[in-house]
Amino acid sequence: MSNELIELGKKSAANKAVEENVKEGMILGIGSGSTVVYAVKKIAEINETKNLDLKCIPTSFQSRQLIVENGLTLVSLDQYPIIDLDIDGADEIDDSLNLIKGGGGCLVQEKIIASASKNLVIIADYSKKSKILGENWHKGVPIEIIPLALVPIMTKLEKLDGVPILRMAKAKAGPVVTDNGNFIIDVDFGRIENPFDLNLKILQISGVVDSGLFLGMAKIAYIGQKDGTVKKLQI
Amino acid sequence: MSNELIELGKKSAANKAVEENVKEGMILGIGSGSTVVYAVKKIAEINETKNLDLKCIPTSFQSRQLIVENGLTLVSLDQYPIIDLDIDGADEIDDSLNLIKGGGGCLVQEKIIASASKNLVIIADYSKKSKILGENWHKGVPIEIIPLALVPIMTKLEKLDGVPILRMAKAKAGPVVTDNGNFIIDVDFGRIENPFDLNLKILQISGVVDSGLFLGMAKIAYIGQKDGTVKKLQI
Amino acid sequence: MSNELIELGKKSAANKAVEENVKEGMILGIGSGSTVVYAVKKIAEINETKNLDLKCIPTSFQSRQLIVENGLTLVSLDQYPIIDLDIDGADEIDDSLNLIKGGGGCLVQEKIIASASKNLVIIADYSKKSKILGENWHKGVPIEIIPLALVPIMTKLEKLDGVPILRMAKAKAGPVVTDNGNFIIDVDFGRIENPFDLNLKILQISGVVDSGLFLGMAKIAYIGQKDGTVKKLQI
Amino acid sequence: MSNELIELGKKSAANKAVEENVKEGMILGIGSGSTVVYAVKKIAEINETKNLDLKCIPTSFQSRQLIVENGLTLVSLDQYPIIDLDIDGADEIDDSLNLIKGGGGCLVQEKIIASASKNLVIIADYSKKSKILGENWHKGVPIEIIPLALVPIMTKLEKLDGVPILRMAKAKAGPVVTDNGNFIIDVDFGRIENPFDLNLKILQISGVVDSGLFLGMAKIAYIGQKDGTVKKLQI
Repeated sequence: MSNELIELGKKSAANKAVEENVKEGMILGIGSGSTVVYAVKKIAEINETKNLDLKCIPTSFQSRQLIVENGLTLVSLDQYPIIDLDIDGADEIDDSLNLIKGGGGCLVQEKIIASASKNLVIIADYSKKSKILGENWHKGVPIEIIPLALVPIMTKLEKLDGVPILRMAKAKAGPVVTDNGNFIIDVDFGRIENPFDLNLKILQISGVVDSGLFLGMAKIAYIGQKDGTVKKLQI
Repeated sequence: MSNELIELGKKSAANKAVEENVKEGMILGIGSGSTVVYAVKKIAEINETKNLDLKCIPTSFQSRQLIVENGLTLVSLDQYPIIDLDIDGADEIDDSLNLIKGGGGCLVQEKIIASASKNLVIIADYSKKSKILGENWHKGVPIEIIPLALVPIMTKLEKLDGVPILRMAKAKAGPVVTDNGNFIIDVDFGRIENPFDLNLKILQISGVVDSGLFLGMAKIAYIGQKDGTVKKLQI
Repeated sequence: MSNELIELGKKSAANKAVEENVKEGMILGIGSGSTVVYAVKKIAEINETKNLDLKCIPTSFQSRQLIVENGLTLVSLDQYPIIDLDIDGADEIDDSLNLIKGGGGCLVQEKIIASASKNLVIIADYSKKSKILGENWHKGVPIEIIPLALVPIMTKLEKLDGVPILRMAKAKAGPVVTDNGNFIIDVDFGRIENPFDLNLKILQISGVVDSGLFLGMAKIAYIGQKDGTVKKLQI
Repeated sequence: MSNELIELGKKSAANKAVEENVKEGMILGIGSGSTVVYAVKKIAEINETKNLDLKCIPTSFQSRQLIVENGLTLVSLDQYPIIDLDIDGADEIDDSLNLIKGGGGCLVQEKIIASASKNLVIIADYSKKSKILGENWHKGVPIEIIPLALVPIMTKLEKLDGVPILRMAKAKAGPVVTDNGNFIIDVDFGRIENPFDLNLKILQISGVVDSGLFLGMAKIAYIGQKDGTVKKLQI
């Protein structure tokens, strides 16, 4: 019962985000995750019925497949380096719409697409909303790293008061390898009081490719509620 | 009870393989998997007590960690391109000691190490032993491929009467990425009557890096039995 | 003077290949190299003037850029796994239209595209034509390998009577790294009397991804002559 | 004549750096480039004659080969995550011993090793010494990037008043691919008045792995002079 309402909320959030933001001729960034599946279906529907001539850039292998399977036009960032609108999910969203992303291991591509977009719209269910990052999401901030640097980076993350864990694969032996050929460390920093400061410190560690902290990037979030309604947050 | 006996069998097989084959000054290839863990412990023990001056080359991130954690000397294939003895596990072993390997996704490195070894010794429990490949192991032959070639390769594997499935990751979105940055397709060929012929056909498909068929490579296998004893197969 | 004629020959070969083979609605594979530049310009021209609705799949970063810069529609192999026509160059072409390719380091992608194509058409200047592979092209057969396996593969290639050289980069320290993250070994086998046999032996070496021997794949070649005319070879 | 003196200066700088800094039992980082070749020879010599039991960690394929060929003990960063001394070259060195590195395309590994070292000692010839970064070195600051992000990163680097050029390969078609599978952009920023500020801005661009600005890392530099003598700089 509750699960049905959550799914209804995710679907409603995705639909509302698409209806209110997707316009004719747009270059779209397509994020990853279960909520994005609803969004892509809605995008494909209005692209066809309203003849919108949309072009889509994926953030992952999964979203690439979603684009192709739903008959949308797949293009790439080197052809269209300025994206009109990026629709993506998140693992946690704070009151300022700062995000933790990367549970699915695609944070680097997702951040590249988000940072090339004029507008980043987040869709998620209510369980992802916190006052402060680290409050509800306890799996940590995903950080993509060059494999060679694993051990020294673990030490440096501990000095930032994090509890770092190398993400291990389940369908292969050894660590998860990202689509870029790198490793992912999930770092529990507890409640993150100053995410901008933390992110700068992380990015300066040699061997770090990028962090799952997406700060000051999202301007609108559609949050599916327990009762199936949608709450729109805007800053 | 049965689980304890299986573990006892694996440990006995590993210990016996090490005791009968590892000699002073050897360059060793170290495979992956749960049975190899027992072998590495035994190798470390006799390396220390008998002062064997062993040097170890890993086949995966996991076996690299095993070598380092057990205080063995880690070297690499470019320093020692001829390996005296490679000890590894298998997913399936037929009567001629042909193997299916790659459940852990490290088949390319494992085959490189095995083919650089004068002697490949397999250690496994009784559940891995079949008369013919494909009889007991139903997850298919793992094949590592260049990601670009995924769709045409799937079609070509179907023409070889295989049922190919792209291996999906569980700890990240999308497919498993190997330590070489490639994808893995698991192909159920049913009972494999002519593995040499099949392997040649697979290797000729453009975009295939290597297959999990290890044919004519192993000369000895130590198989832990249900009752905790060890059966030695030799060809 | 002679250079101008060679360029004229390359251009004439490219133009003729395009005019005789490119048809409306085709999915095209686009190869790499200086002759292909002429072909892409011609393809773009007739795509526009004859409204051919062509879709193009690249074999390299260079050909991807050629497609985008010339305003052609870029698609990918997972969307269109069956290619109608692949137009590519070659380093050497024998009497049976067997090829050595890979001077540009893109042999793996080029072979994947060629093997997914119903028809492979080669365009080249007369200097690339030999009776037998290895006769005129002395830089060797390029072979893409997994870096870990470098030293044992070198030894195995010498046992096949080859003279293998690891291809070193000029714009970076160390070896050339391919777009797949691998190394390239150029192997001089002298005159290659039995390329099919040699290729099978190469592909069975552990750690080899693919070889630059493209055998039995091309059916037509357009060879620009010294005097600027074009010779069409067909088998 | 002048060339001989330059080589003498490089050799003298390398020898002096080794003699004054390498001590028994050290874990050494080994950089890349022509000056480092002299250093490794000297290290191998004193390791043997003085029985120093040194262990060496490479920063590139080239330095890995130097270590192995000179009979030094090769170890890795996961075994020895704290390096006692890193000896490396540089493309440019300012008065505060800030550096531009990465001409050889190994900046990411070099920075990982340098940042894991208690002490970074630079060896170079006099042509690399400037008052301010960008004064004498006009090939730009090398920046390693995720290939997907190429076009948006070029735009963002132009907004930082840089002139970015994608580094093209010479021994393969298309761009240089680094040992990590990435691209390199060389960015001419002119004279760099505030390298710390610039570096922070570069690191915050999505898709940037790392920059060739090595700031506040080196404490000592040995500079071979025109006349074959060595000048020691220390901060």
